[in-house]
Order: sequence, then structure tokens, then C-alpha cells
Amino acid sequence: MDITLEQAAQRLLEADDILILSHQSPDGDTLGSASALLRGLCSLGKRARFLCSDPVPKKFQYLFGGLGAQDFAPKFIVSVDIADRQLFGPGLAEYREQVDLCLDHHGTNERFAKENYVEPRAAAACEVLFLVLKEMRVKISREIADCLFTGICTDTGCFRYGNVTPRTHRMAAELMELGARAADINREMFDTKSRSRMEVERRALDSLTFHLQDRCAFLYVPRRWLEECRAEESELEGLASLPRQIEGVLAGVCVREKPDGSLKVSLRTNDPLSAASICEAFGGGGHRAAAGCAFHNVPLEDVKEKLLAEIQRQLEGCGL
Amino acid sequence: MDITLEQAAQRLLEADDILILSHQSPDGDTLGSASALLRGLCSLGKRARFLCSDPVPKKFQYLFGGLGAQDFAPKFIVSVDIADRQLFGPGLAEYREQVDLCLDHHGTNERFAKENYVEPRAAAACEVLFLVLKEMRVKISREIADCLFTGICTDTGCFRYGNVTPRTHRMAAELMELGARAADINREMFDTKSRSRMEVERRALDSLTFHLQDRCAFLYVPRRWLEECRAEESELEGLASLPRQIEGVLAGVCVREKPDGSLKVSLRTNDPLSAASICEAFGGGGHRAAAGCAFHNVPLEDVKEKLLAEIQRQLEGCGL
Repeated sequence: MDITLEQAAQRLLEADDILILSHQSPDGDTLGSASALLRGLCSLGKRARFLCSDPVPKKFQYLFGGLGAQDFAPKFIVSVDIADRQLFGPGLAEYREQVDLCLDHHGTNERFAKENYVEPRAAAACEVLFLVLKEMRVKISREIADCLFTGICTDTGCFRYGNVTPRTHRMAAELMELGARAADINREMFDTKSRSRMEVERRALDSLTFHLQDRCAFLYVPRRWLEECRAEESELEGLASLPRQIEGVLAGVCVREKPDGSLKVSLRTNDPLSAASICEAFGGGGHRAAAGCAFHNVPLEDVKEKLLAEIQRQLEGCGL
Repeated sequence: MDITLEQAAQRLLEADDILILSHQSPDGDTLGSASALLRGLCSLGKRARFLCSDPVPKKFQYLFGGLGAQDFAPKFIVSVDIADRQLFGPGLAEYREQVDLCLDHHGTNERFAKENYVEPRAAAACEVLFLVLKEMRVKISREIADCLFTGICTDTGCFRYGNVTPRTHRMAAELMELGARAADINREMFDTKSRSRMEVERRALDSLTFHLQDRCAFLYVPRRWLEECRAEESELEGLASLPRQIEGVLAGVCVREKPDGSLKVSLRTNDPLSAASICEAFGGGGHRAAAGCAFHNVPLEDVKEKLLAEIQRQLEGCGL
């Protein structure tokens, strides 16, 4: 059931012994939302704790700084930035059907919780959380401002993407006034690269190939790069957006080898191509500018050939 | 002489046949400021034209779209985003001492004009121009909003740097509401790379070296890269910030070979190192986090050795 902002705030004000859940492979927005809510609830004297199927990446650990561990049997379960049941991940599977309140910003949200407050026009779940915390009359501390700012800046590529609205900028202004360390957080998120990430990018640039009169750029990321570059899985994040960045490229393809040998395709397109409709031809899906699909037991060269053929077909369909 | 915002607006309202000047090697902020002012003055029925010592780079030409050329002997000269006389460049040298009004945001502004309105806390000259145009009661069209947004987003690294204030975000919100094509402009400025730029970056990553227990990263950009990568001078912009991006690096050095064979050093540092104080040791200068110096008739290896020795000395001075 969908509820209003006021009702969502009311539910949280009435609850205690609250368990907050983030999605698997957690990013800045799900963790910023969870840590902001955790801090807000604790500031009201409530018991609250946080769970995620995966560990919190090192670069996001500051969000939870100074928060002690609490142990209790949860009486109220709230999920943040989780669009569907699959995103709970194996570690939180037991909670999938037990969520009391879902706070989210994904238009595709499955409404899996008893009550759901979903605002699709919010650029980040942290925009939703900012509204909820204000509605609850929580005092937004510097720490909470940092958490909310982190989610907003990471989910918008530092205010770069099409999901940013005037409200997003106004919230950023307000969070800065509340003490968010905006410049430090931005530098940490967008201007700091590990040596291993740098090495991964170097290889990516070295191995990029161009096709279909340079309108398609293709990148293959083999599994062995992880070991050879001493990189973690999370350091491969964002590589998929690299091929499309090149001037003139309408379809940027990134194929990643998964641990089970399957090939995961991330496609990014510019108008007039639709990434979703290309990936749908292979049983995948997504959005207009970003979509994905997967191939099992198909050699890389065949995957590449199939993708290029479909991209060419759709380019021709656009009269290009 | 320094004047107030109201006075600056008044001068422009009283003037006609106005010449607007941008600084050499023009960037998004000086061009966004000039084009916004040009459009604002024309909307009031005044004659105005624009000059710059260098051609407008292709990526910024949309700022001037739809503006016809006007020819007249200027009666009033205004400079935008120009901090000192040297920045007029050879093509505008004749105007250096004739500027009636200087609109700028650089704390180091020389006050070379008859009257100066300088607001150092503005992240971009376009913030200053937005205030001036509003004070003049100019109707901010979609085109003017695009120009102002371009200057603000480019001078802040898309709202990333420490110069961003809450006002910067609020202005961005307002400009979006006035019709600025924020997402398109951001993509063009921050998510689009030419093939030649991509090739330059590939080489830069390939040739990066690490020193002083990995606290210093060093990049040398030889002249021949331009030809080999078919890149223009302007495509080397921003390379200097690459070495410091690497985790753990306190001093990122970029040495570029200039047409006359001299070596231009751009230094970027993280706390506690001061880029300015390292560059001052070689007759250069700048800000705490970004500074520069130049060497003439000194071999690259000697430059590298001198720089590393000074960086090590200052690291030790900080107890590191």
C-alpha cells in the first residue's frame, strides 16, 4: 500500500526497536539513507540498527562513524533505496517479506512492503529521507547532513545527471548550511582513485575498440583483471559509462566476465538509440539510456557479434 | 575604484555601444559571462559586441548561437572574469587600459578598470553576472540561463569544488527553472571526450610514475603527444589534476613541454602540503592546493630531481 510522507513519518515516530535495511552491493545513496535514518532515530532516543547483505565499502564507512552497535529483536523493519525483493541479497533474504515500511525513489519499485512511500521524482533516496526526517522534526546534525549529502551527490554523479531537479540543488544548499562537508565528500567520491582503479582504467582505455563507423565503442573486462590489478569488484564500478563518453559514440558496450564465466553486458546509449530496446532483444532490460543483459555459455566473440548486429539494426531503424 | 552591485548595474543601464571582453584561452566561465551579458544588453535594445584574444572553442560556440555580428566604435568597455591585465592576451592588448567596468570573482583581481565590481566569494563570474542582470531587471531567457549555468558548472567542476556555496546551488536551481538545459550542458562539459583526448589520457596513465613512497605522482606531457594523438592544446586541459587524484598522493606533478621547449610545471597538493610554497622555491606561485612554475633551458631529469627534492623537504617540514 502507498502512504503519504506524513504517514511515513508518523509510522517511524510511533515505532521502536527498528531495523534498517540497505540493498546489496551498497552504494552511497542506500548507505547515506540508512545512516541518516539510523542517526535520526537514535537522536529521538529510539533503538535502531542497520543490516546489509554485503559489507560497507571502506570509502563509505565514515557514514556510520561514532555509531555504537545495538542488539535487539526488531519490532519494525524499514528498507531504504530498495526497489525490489531481489536486491535484498542472500544475507537479508529472511526479511524480504517482512518489511513494514519501504522508503524509495525508484519508479519501478515493487511495493513489496506493508506500506510504501516512494517518490520517483527524487534524484536520490536521500532526498526522500531528508523530507521524512524533516517531517519527523528530527534535528539535522552535521553528521546527518553528511549522510544525506553523500547519497544525493553519489546518485546524481555530483549534480551532473538528468535526474537532478531544482529541489536537488536546493537540498544541497540547505545541507551545506547544516554543516555537510560538501567539498571533502565530493573529493573523496569523485576525485580520488585507488592505484588499482587507476590500473583498471588504464587497461580499459588500452583495450577499447570501435565499430560501426565509430558509433559503437566496445570494452571487455576479463575476470583476471581483478587479480592482475589487485582490484576489488567494487572498483570496476562506473567502467560501463566509459565507452559512451567518447565523442560520436551512440552505443557504449561494456562486457564483464562474471565469476561463473557468464558475460554481463552493460549498455549505455545516446539519443536516438534506446539501450533498453537493444537489451530486450537478448532477454534483458532497463532504461532508455542505460540497460543490461547477460549471456551464459556463449563465447565472447559471439556475444560481441550479436550485440553489434542488433545495434546496427536499431541504428538503421533510426535512419542512421 | 570598487563600486557596488547597484552601481555596476546602473552603469550598464546607462551605457550603449558596449564592447565585452573575455580573457585569453577562454573557458566556460568567461564565455558564459560574456554571452549572458551580450544577450541581456541586446534584450534591452542596446548595441553590444564581444571580443576575445583567442577563438571561441567549438564546445562553447552554442553560447553565442543566434547572435548576429554588430559593428560599431565602442563607447563603453566591460571585462568579464579577467583578473589582471596580462590575461587580455595579445589580441586585446589595446584595450587593457581602457576598461570602464570590470566584473569579476577573483580575489586577486588587480582593479585595472575605472570601476570594478569584484565578488571573491562567488564561485564563478557567472554568479556575479546573474546578480548584475537581475539588478538590471533583464528578463533571464532560456538562452541566458544556459550561458550562466555553463559558467557556474564549469568553474566548479560540476558543483564539486570547495568554491561552491549554498548560493551556487540555489542559483543552479533558479537557472534550471528558467529553462537552462542543465543535464545536456553537464554531459557536453563533463561526460564527452574526443578520441584524441581519450588517447592523451591513455598515454598519461601509461606514463605516470610514483615517488617518495608513493606520496608523489609525476606526469610528463611531451610536445609530440599533440601530433601523435592529433590533439589540440585545449585538449590537454585538466591533465594536471590527474596525478593528485590517486589515493595516498599528496603532491601531483604535471610537467608540460611548451612550444619554445621550456617546461611548465603544474602542481596540485593535498593537505598539509602547500603547492604555492613549493612552487615559490622556483620563482612560481599560486594557491595552496594548485600552483605552478616554469623552467627554461633545464633538462627534464633535472627539473624532476629539483621538484622531488623540494617536495621531500616540505614533506619533512610537515613531519611526514
